[in-house]
Amino acid sequence: MGEVTASSLGEFREILGRLPGPDEAAAAQAAAREAQLTKPPGALARLEVLSEWMARWQGRHPPRIERPRAAVFAGNHGIAARGVSAFPAEVTAQMVANFQAGGAAVNQLCKTFDAELRVYEMALERPTADFTQGPAMADGECANAMAFGMMAVDDGIDVICLGEMGIANTTSAAALCHALFGGLAADWTGPGTGVAGDALEAKTSIVAEAVALHRAALDDPFEIMRRLGGRELAAITGAVIAARMGRVPVLLDGYACTAAAAILHRIEPHLIDHCMVAHCSAEPGHVRLLEAIGRKPLLDLGMRLGEASGAVLALGLLRAAVGCHTGMSTFAEAGVSSRD
Amino acid sequence: MGEVTASSLGEFREILGRLPGPDEAAAAQAAAREAQLTKPPGALARLEVLSEWMARWQGRHPPRIERPRAAVFAGNHGIAARGVSAFPAEVTAQMVANFQAGGAAVNQLCKTFDAELRVYEMALERPTADFTQGPAMADGECANAMAFGMMAVDDGIDVICLGEMGIANTTSAAALCHALFGGLAADWTGPGTGVAGDALEAKTSIVAEAVALHRAALDDPFEIMRRLGGRELAAITGAVIAARMGRVPVLLDGYACTAAAAILHRIEPHLIDHCMVAHCSAEPGHVRLLEAIGRKPLLDLGMRLGEASGAVLALGLLRAAVGCHTGMSTFAEAGVSSRD
Repeated sequence: MGEVTASSLGEFREILGRLPGPDEAAAAQAAAREAQLTKPPGALARLEVLSEWMARWQGRHPPRIERPRAAVFAGNHGIAARGVSAFPAEVTAQMVANFQAGGAAVNQLCKTFDAELRVYEMALERPTADFTQGPAMADGECANAMAFGMMAVDDGIDVICLGEMGIANTTSAAALCHALFGGLAADWTGPGTGVAGDALEAKTSIVAEAVALHRAALDDPFEIMRRLGGRELAAITGAVIAARMGRVPVLLDGYACTAAAAILHRIEPHLIDHCMVAHCSAEPGHVRLLEAIGRKPLLDLGMRLGEASGAVLALGLLRAAVGCHTGMSTFAEAGVSSRD
Repeated sequence: MGEVTASSLGEFREILGRLPGPDEAAAAQAAAREAQLTKPPGALARLEVLSEWMARWQGRHPPRIERPRAAVFAGNHGIAARGVSAFPAEVTAQMVANFQAGGAAVNQLCKTFDAELRVYEMALERPTADFTQGPAMADGECANAMAFGMMAVDDGIDVICLGEMGIANTTSAAALCHALFGGLAADWTGPGTGVAGDALEAKTSIVAEAVALHRAALDDPFEIMRRLGGRELAAITGAVIAARMGRVPVLLDGYACTAAAAILHRIEPHLIDHCMVAHCSAEPGHVRLLEAIGRKPLLDLGMRLGEASGAVLALGLLRAAVGCHTGMSTFAEAGVSSRD
């Protein structure tokens, strides 16, 4: 994790109070331009909403996509040793190598939609602790992971697609959601990479067991992340904060990624207003999570891969939206008659 | 409409019997490759289905997207004189000029997803007849329009996005659907470019009136197109046929475009198996039409613009699917462990 200085989770609480809000003037400029473009009012629907959202959170009009980045954080989980995944834990490192070699889905998607891919490997040789035995991370360790995630939002990036790779991390995501939003462990636990039957029941029990163990400490969302999360998930939480600071709109990927952002939503719902959920994962907890945070995803294609794949796919929609917004002619420019 | 020789609708009936079927060998090769790629089985879900569908209908493996085309057909409708649209009829020609000048939404979308745009202007100075008074087109006129549409599928095109521009053509689409699938005129009639209240009621009555006038002749789907359709819609029907002949997968746009393809579905449902519906339009009849033909659209973003905008947006998904399918490493190539 390089030279990031350790900080405490307390420092992040202070940062949250100083984050910039929406630029409603830029958003109003976007809406005003949309109304003049050669189409019936509202006919591009969510593409229009995306353009306005980009202006609002980039804090400028017109919005631009010149340096989009996909940031994939990879971490290993102590809980993997309990057999919660269909794949062995070494697959996390193997997939990181696959990302670096250009062979994974996210590499092809970044090529298709012209995004830079950065892969952030987070101490894969040291999995987090098994959270059915104690906290997954120490305070400084979780704070470090968040700070590490913040560094992915470099100056000049104008949109960021966030994603993760971590064998066993849908178990961690389920525990985060169960702790954040209540319900039953079974509401939040799903097949992940493909567990079913007895293995899925065991996974569900582990989620219930973990949340029960930490119950007394779950009022504080950062503490939920520290106890039940993982390094790659804490990094996503950090990246969402840094993106807000840097006026960089965020595309969130699937279940694990949205769960990491939901930590902030629980602190204050508007903290993730600069984030769009890119797609609805096939992981059943994701639909419930989207309801809990009141979000409608852009795509719903049954995907459940992680590694920012859904987020980069939605970057195509965002490019389309901004392309229409900035490139289309107005009724006046094109000499097209407006409504009768 | 250039030098297309007139033919009769009867000739098209003969062509339909000679169209190629699916290439299941190519589809099986695609499925076999998907199973080896570095992801949990099925994790790319509909993207995997798209790759297999491309192989099946291109009749080759791997599928390729090297020359995608967006074909937008424009026509004028006699029924426009009855005030069924929020925009005046001259907007059809004005929007064609806008397409040619590069100022419309579809131009920006073609730029975003690297598709060639062709706009086919179909005798805009001669609207079809008012179909509440008689057939919209003569037999040779409708056949000509279909033949014209077929020409859009040039050799070397490897996927085609179909769309339309035609003030009043959601009225025509509603009449086609009402004639094809029954129900009430109100089931199929919607705001189009934005009519509401009394104007929407009048539009609905016009659809009912038209279908009632032609009821005795509506057993034959081509006759439905001739009596209630329009040149740009007949051209789409023709393009769908030519695409099947030329092994070119088709992305259908919204309501009017899907209605034109539904003419073939009514003759024989498998005739449009080489077509995907790109998106669900906000025009309420589209959901019902999709149910009637048993199709699930790729995107659902509330759009209702036409001009192939939804189809070209879905080309981005198709590029992503084919990119993943052809570019990803297999478990063996990447040295990634498969399931436990």
